[in-house]
Amino acid sequence: MDPDQLRSLLEQVRSGVVDIDVAIARMRHLPFEDLGFAKVDHHRALRHGMPEVVLAKGKTNEQVSAIAARLLENSSNVLITRADPECGHAVTQQIPGGEYFPLSGVIRFWRDRTIRGRGKIAVVCAGTSDIPVAEEAQLTVEVMGNEVDTIHDIGVAGIHRLMQNRERLSEARVIVVCAGMEGALPSAVGGLVSCPVIAVPTSIGYGASFHGLAALLGMLNSCASNVTVVNIDNGFGAGYVASLINRL
Amino acid sequence: MDPDQLRSLLEQVRSGVVDIDVAIARMRHLPFEDLGFAKVDHHRALRHGMPEVVLAKGKTNEQVSAIAARLLENSSNVLITRADPECGHAVTQQIPGGEYFPLSGVIRFWRDRTIRGRGKIAVVCAGTSDIPVAEEAQLTVEVMGNEVDTIHDIGVAGIHRLMQNRERLSEARVIVVCAGMEGALPSAVGGLVSCPVIAVPTSIGYGASFHGLAALLGMLNSCASNVTVVNIDNGFGAGYVASLINRL
Amino acid sequence: MDPDQLRSLLEQVRSGVVDIDVAIARMRHLPFEDLGFAKVDHHRALRHGMPEVVLAKGKTNEQVSAIAARLLENSSNVLITRADPECGHAVTQQIPGGEYFPLSGVIRFWRDRTIRGRGKIAVVCAGTSDIPVAEEAQLTVEVMGNEVDTIHDIGVAGIHRLMQNRERLSEARVIVVCAGMEGALPSAVGGLVSCPVIAVPTSIGYGASFHGLAALLGMLNSCASNVTVVNIDNGFGAGYVASLINRL
Amino acid sequence: MDPDQLRSLLEQVRSGVVDIDVAIARMRHLPFEDLGFAKVDHHRALRHGMPEVVLAKGKTNEQVSAIAARLLENSSNVLITRADPECGHAVTQQIPGGEYFPLSGVIRFWRDRTIRGRGKIAVVCAGTSDIPVAEEAQLTVEVMGNEVDTIHDIGVAGIHRLMQNRERLSEARVIVVCAGMEGALPSAVGGLVSCPVIAVPTSIGYGASFHGLAALLGMLNSCASNVTVVNIDNGFGAGYVASLINRL
Amino acid sequence: MDPDQLRSLLEQVRSGVVDIDVAIARMRHLPFEDLGFAKVDHHRALRHGMPEVVLAKGKTNEQVSAIAARLLENSSNVLITRADPECGHAVTQQIPGGEYFPLSGVIRFWRDRTIRGRGKIAVVCAGTSDIPVAEEAQLTVEVMGNEVDTIHDIGVAGIHRLMQNRERLSEARVIVVCAGMEGALPSAVGGLVSCPVIAVPTSIGYGASFHGLAALLGMLNSCASNVTVVNIDNGFGAGYVASLINRL
Amino acid sequence: MDPDQLRSLLEQVRSGVVDIDVAIARMRHLPFEDLGFAKVDHHRALRHGMPEVVLAKGKTNEQVSAIAARLLENSSNVLITRADPECGHAVTQQIPGGEYFPLSGVIRFWRDRTIRGRGKIAVVCAGTSDIPVAEEAQLTVEVMGNEVDTIHDIGVAGIHRLMQNRERLSEARVIVVCAGMEGALPSAVGGLVSCPVIAVPTSIGYGASFHGLAALLGMLNSCASNVTVVNIDNGFGAGYVASLINRL
Amino acid sequence: MDPDQLRSLLEQVRSGVVDIDVAIARMRHLPFEDLGFAKVDHHRALRHGMPEVVLAKGKTNEQVSAIAARLLENSSNVLITRADPECGHAVTQQIPGGEYFPLSGVIRFWRDRTIRGRGKIAVVCAGTSDIPVAEEAQLTVEVMGNEVDTIHDIGVAGIHRLMQNRERLSEARVIVVCAGMEGALPSAVGGLVSCPVIAVPTSIGYGASFHGLAALLGMLNSCASNVTVVNIDNGFGAGYVASLINRL
Amino acid sequence: MDPDQLRSLLEQVRSGVVDIDVAIARMRHLPFEDLGFAKVDHHRALRHGMPEVVLAKGKTNEQVSAIAARLLENSSNVLITRADPECGHAVTQQIPGGEYFPLSGVIRFWRDRTIRGRGKIAVVCAGTSDIPVAEEAQLTVEVMGNEVDTIHDIGVAGIHRLMQNRERLSEARVIVVCAGMEGALPSAVGGLVSCPVIAVPTSIGYGASFHGLAALLGMLNSCASNVTVVNIDNGFGAGYVASLINRL
Repeated sequence: MDPDQLRSLLEQVRSGVVDIDVAIARMRHLPFEDLGFAKVDHHRALRHGMPEVVLAKGKTNEQVSAIAARLLENSSNVLITRADPECGHAVTQQIPGGEYFPLSGVIRFWRDRTIRGRGKIAVVCAGTSDIPVAEEAQLTVEVMGNEVDTIHDIGVAGIHRLMQNRERLSEARVIVVCAGMEGALPSAVGGLVSCPVIAVPTSIGYGASFHGLAALLGMLNSCASNVTVVNIDNGFGAGYVASLINRL
Repeated sequence: MDPDQLRSLLEQVRSGVVDIDVAIARMRHLPFEDLGFAKVDHHRALRHGMPEVVLAKGKTNEQVSAIAARLLENSSNVLITRADPECGHAVTQQIPGGEYFPLSGVIRFWRDRTIRGRGKIAVVCAGTSDIPVAEEAQLTVEVMGNEVDTIHDIGVAGIHRLMQNRERLSEARVIVVCAGMEGALPSAVGGLVSCPVIAVPTSIGYGASFHGLAALLGMLNSCASNVTVVNIDNGFGAGYVASLINRL
Repeated sequence: MDPDQLRSLLEQVRSGVVDIDVAIARMRHLPFEDLGFAKVDHHRALRHGMPEVVLAKGKTNEQVSAIAARLLENSSNVLITRADPECGHAVTQQIPGGEYFPLSGVIRFWRDRTIRGRGKIAVVCAGTSDIPVAEEAQLTVEVMGNEVDTIHDIGVAGIHRLMQNRERLSEARVIVVCAGMEGALPSAVGGLVSCPVIAVPTSIGYGASFHGLAALLGMLNSCASNVTVVNIDNGFGAGYVASLINRL
Repeated sequence: MDPDQLRSLLEQVRSGVVDIDVAIARMRHLPFEDLGFAKVDHHRALRHGMPEVVLAKGKTNEQVSAIAARLLENSSNVLITRADPECGHAVTQQIPGGEYFPLSGVIRFWRDRTIRGRGKIAVVCAGTSDIPVAEEAQLTVEVMGNEVDTIHDIGVAGIHRLMQNRERLSEARVIVVCAGMEGALPSAVGGLVSCPVIAVPTSIGYGASFHGLAALLGMLNSCASNVTVVNIDNGFGAGYVASLINRL
Repeated sequence: MDPDQLRSLLEQVRSGVVDIDVAIARMRHLPFEDLGFAKVDHHRALRHGMPEVVLAKGKTNEQVSAIAARLLENSSNVLITRADPECGHAVTQQIPGGEYFPLSGVIRFWRDRTIRGRGKIAVVCAGTSDIPVAEEAQLTVEVMGNEVDTIHDIGVAGIHRLMQNRERLSEARVIVVCAGMEGALPSAVGGLVSCPVIAVPTSIGYGASFHGLAALLGMLNSCASNVTVVNIDNGFGAGYVASLINRL
Repeated sequence: MDPDQLRSLLEQVRSGVVDIDVAIARMRHLPFEDLGFAKVDHHRALRHGMPEVVLAKGKTNEQVSAIAARLLENSSNVLITRADPECGHAVTQQIPGGEYFPLSGVIRFWRDRTIRGRGKIAVVCAGTSDIPVAEEAQLTVEVMGNEVDTIHDIGVAGIHRLMQNRERLSEARVIVVCAGMEGALPSAVGGLVSCPVIAVPTSIGYGASFHGLAALLGMLNSCASNVTVVNIDNGFGAGYVASLINRL
Repeated sequence: MDPDQLRSLLEQVRSGVVDIDVAIARMRHLPFEDLGFAKVDHHRALRHGMPEVVLAKGKTNEQVSAIAARLLENSSNVLITRADPECGHAVTQQIPGGEYFPLSGVIRFWRDRTIRGRGKIAVVCAGTSDIPVAEEAQLTVEVMGNEVDTIHDIGVAGIHRLMQNRERLSEARVIVVCAGMEGALPSAVGGLVSCPVIAVPTSIGYGASFHGLAALLGMLNSCASNVTVVNIDNGFGAGYVASLINRL
Repeated sequence: MDPDQLRSLLEQVRSGVVDIDVAIARMRHLPFEDLGFAKVDHHRALRHGMPEVVLAKGKTNEQVSAIAARLLENSSNVLITRADPECGHAVTQQIPGGEYFPLSGVIRFWRDRTIRGRGKIAVVCAGTSDIPVAEEAQLTVEVMGNEVDTIHDIGVAGIHRLMQNRERLSEARVIVVCAGMEGALPSAVGGLVSCPVIAVPTSIGYGASFHGLAALLGMLNSCASNVTVVNIDNGFGAGYVASLINRL
């Protein structure tokens, strides 16, 4: 039962064709969403220009292409994550206007480049091996309409590099920090700035890194109070939340 | 060497008493902070009215009282976390103007009640057992100058209670969600709103909850993209970051 | 807005006082539950005679008493779990008709003893140390209106005891099996019967039992296909589901 | 010694050829099962029409074919799980009447389609990536003689989709819920219905999902009392138990 | 139905009072153990003089006393493990002839001191903190009728002490080795001797010993082929198996 | 310095060429093993006919062949474990008299088939998937000179199969039990017999079996006192210790 | 057989009373250490002035006092670790010259204060809660004859404090760094200096710190190459190794 | 702003062109490192002749070659770790003077072979499977200018081999010990010598070795006080720290 049906029911109530008790009974048996009563949302602005997002992993190249094509009919921007090179090639061949980023496995259709964020977002990583995750965050942040400042390779074991970037860091409104191994960078960055820091543990490392667990635990135990954490290698999630914050 | 010493050195340079090479050499041997070169901070506004925070755990009642008294000389607001009842009693007896909250173990001196946040922060918890952690978040959010809307006991197993609060949730600019056991509430809330959600796993549960590990893992794997996570039982951290975001 | 309000609104529609568009708009802004549209439930029978359940842990004795008293106004049966002896004493002193079971920490008000289950539920445990958890299951099963057959101390290391109970086991419609240490009993029982088996790992054991983890993992990996598992020490949950199944 | 031998022995006792003491001694040395004394089973109905089940993993295609061919001599229905495409092709080529389902890796011979379940079983999954596990459950439920209602992609982060399916869910007699990542769906479903819910954690996710551990822990800690859990990715087990319950 | 009943049934068969079919039917419905068909056991010698064993933990002092008193009616030797000092005192006060060992928490009634083992059992521990576990093993070994040679404090970090005991070690027929921390001693002992070594990890240690997990894992990965392992702190189990082996 | 050197030194002492103090000093500086002082070993019998053992994993086929050829010069029997088919083929091609067992990956040279064990060793496994590990145990037990009785597929979920084998089990002097998944079989076997049981967890299973961890923990927590445990999939180790025990 | 016995044996060889073959045979049967052949040690200097060390935990106050008294007869310096206040009081009352440090639980007898280290050892900690562990390291370092520079409270979240101490850090020959929570400080310190850094994870933290596991993993994964790690809370061990290095 | 800019600013101060307050203000806004103020380093000697180190893993062969070529312009020695054979071949083909070590995956350019260490470093491993990790340590130690003594295959299960190497071990100034499985060798070596021992757990083993976790935990819990630990398989790190210590 959609709004038209509701209107028609009410018209029958008005005209006396349908009894009030009957009308109530009929309404009781309807799932409320079918009434078209949309979720109240006072922050609709937050969602303007939001890209559609597709997870390529676990889908065939044809499925990804088909989904992307359909989404692009209504949405200017589409972000496809975790696509292997074959998928990247297939999709960008088949649908014009896309770009494939092999490091991070992202395919991006970025047609509406309006800036919607109110400040700059810094995307930082500790080592060169963390760049794929940082790139996923960066591509997300950009496609969601933000200026981004990417700073690579400023791990805590070379603290002078970090200090040299203090000013750039302090100019950001939100910072995404990607780090593997001991995952110490978010604490160090968090101590240098006053803004929110979103920490992304990466699965970089070996042995007792346990595929990112060491970094994850480190970040959750950060002694800097302005740090929150997302899942291991979840560059997209960090970029997404950073973008939400930057639109506030 | 403080700024005065730097000034005096430069004056000696000007007057020719000290050679330029000698001046450079002297400066080279100084730790740079002693020069009084403060960290550049473009977001100083973020820090106006920030409370001082003290962790009571591991300190004697006398130590907590002494630290609090000293901090209150320069800071309007002081938040003391993880204080047991004895400590709460001792500190509020000795220093006027404080209030002790036995559930969360917080002592709060809240003298400057200026609102600095730009919107409302919702602090939500899944079950009544999660209230202590939610209260720590709430008290933090308040003392940092925010309007707060607290909503208790809307766990996912009673999804109607959650749905009934949709509108209140959607009026918040940031939401802190505390949940133990399976930690599913942040995903459900995250799916209902467009704003950032900060998830706090609590150690509530038994058996395979492993003191909050189940909730923590659940939240890190949230299928809602607007969720970030802090440490188990870290109500303060969640409230702190929520406040930072709400000042942006 | 409750059903009366809805009726009144519809009457205004009928009388022409309220325009149809206005009526739709008003309805859109109401949380649907407030309309009194109850959840459709084709299995309402499942819920007749359901006891109210209270978790005593983390509540004061006064709180438990107050909640129990209030619940007993509308509900014949109330089950209070994880109550320590003091709480057990306080509640049974203050509210007549309750019984405290110190082994399992259950307080039970069992006023409506109608049998609602269609068969017998067996509650089995591997060793005497598992009895507290088995008792929690048994008390739950009883208060939910089931005949129960309790069989203690038939661990797999004494397989003859288990074999001697084959007939009793095969007469049950559902079986709850509580076991700590290696948690092997549910597999052995599951292999002997055709009915559903609900396995409850207990925290009984030491060293590499890791507080029930060994038993939990064992049960999840059961080679018997009719076994499902609940949380460590969750006798209540197992009894609850067994009762639901027995009402089907 | 089968029943005939027992009869012959008793006849020799009757005729006096064998002494009573000798008879007792002979019987003592026999494994009791060889006497043909079947396990007493009051729920034999539960087992009518049960399919034979084969785990393909770890067997050669020839072995799987041979086993299936032999089983099909006595059993109408055979279910082969965890078969890779090659195996699926080989078996269905060699034995007529089978169907291979590549998503879940199931080969099914479904010759007796009698409905034996007393109601409908719903098989639900949270995301499209969970469909392979849900399909394994669905195929099991069908081959065991049940009507099944499959509902895909109603994860908790899109709670409106879940709410829209309330009625379908409440019409089920048992529900199987498959979910990876945070594994929150069983709690949400469990809160909406009164019937037993069997939760299947899937290994879907990355990073801190630890191959299904996060979902497993979440489900074990469910705050909904009607939820029990099976092993990670064990769609077959969940379908099997659901079918047993539905026959009760 | 005991053997007498079986005899009587067979007599009725012989006399023609009971029909053969009826006799078979009656036998079918009996649990086979009730026929008195004891388990065949070719190693009965292994069990002569076996002590009865009681786990005190989780029982009241009265329960332990009562069980011990009853067991002592039929059994010469009784071993009670994990008894706290109060229990030790209560039991030895109430039942004459017992001895309490406070280090290991064992109460021992050792009335039949016949030597039944064919050789000597060595009980070895790595550090003085491991002595309680070693003592539990030693008391078990003794009460089961073995000569025992106890060697304390020969950890691998002082390898000369170990080497000095080579001869004593090589005179043992079985060796029990208790060690906490890194649990390396069983490998070193195992390399020095040709006999079976039973390794007992102890919970001695701190930090990354994780309550005996480090020692347990170390022993399971022993590079000496003659090492098997029991649960953490399970001195009794190691002593029990060593005694079984020594009786062979 | 070998025994000849020692003899020569003593001769110089006797002849007076070397002073006693000088002789003592020289001896002090020698590593004692170089003196040829073999380890005292009262159980030398244990080592007669011991096969040489080679771990193929991590070595090239050439290395394995070369090592095996060299060992076969002095040793009648050689056991090579964890060899892949290529290695198995290469070695048996190059050195006559060897046999390759593809299931377990063992290459065996078994030239001296003297029986040295005093009884029979049973090698038991729970499911057909555990056979490779059981075969490794069996081949080890045989090559070490024991009669072996192998019993497959008697898991606890089909307890009747287990009961049917009681007599065979009770005829063994030592039993090796291999089981994956929940690892419950050793407890059940241990309860049926009086002899030592050596439990081998296998990595068979999926999901929460965590590559054999569930089975390992289950076995370590066995409620049967005659069970000890070896590493996951360590069929060789279990067979080796069983053989040692059987020679005692 | 001590050196005198060896001398006497050689004299018998010289005098012809004992045959050379007999002498060799006798020597073969002696454990070599009994010959008094001390371990060759080219670094004896490393051990001059080493304190004796006693672990108080698990010993009675009387035992600790007795051991300490005996050790002090031959050793100038004695360090007793993990002593609770009662033990500290008892020992220092009974034996003059000792000092008890309640924070770290150390009792120290420091009578020989010779400096034996070649440089300065820095003992650094991240937060005030880490001071007990740092104090244990400091007291160890001092009693082993080293100059020590203690620097507290320079965690990575306040990186300016760390930078201010660069010069002091760079003057150390070895650095011990104690940190809990995320354990990031050793990496940051390691990046600032060229000397060896010994990292001590502390059990400080809550929730996902898992009693020091997070810090331990962080340190093991340090991206600074000059960092090695000791056990959680093992201040003594770190101080001991730092002292060894400083004597080189 | 580099030193020249600082000089020019100071010259402007001297000449009066720039006011002192202005100069201070300008300096305040500069990141201090840009001033060219190098980190104070009193142990610069430690860094003479340090090789440049490149991690090949995660880089293309071209990238590795390019980086190596550039580094070799300024540095005599370059060490490339974790290079697969293809990479090893590509780099050594393209850049003359390099050597590839396939076991450890190291490529080494060792042009400056000055000995800078003050003593010998022993690199020890427990089994032949640990040699790749030991080789990485050895190659690091050599390229950093140390004499190295490598001792393979002296695991604790063959303690005589270890004892035979006592003297060689005691001649080392630092010892690196690599061991997998139970990881017991560092404790045994640590007990034999007085010098610092750096333990490297290797991922060698199977089952409950959990990819080196067992060895890692064992080493962290070493009962020898002179042992510190690095990450699993981190032969490079151990060799690096050993070299630092040997330069002191």
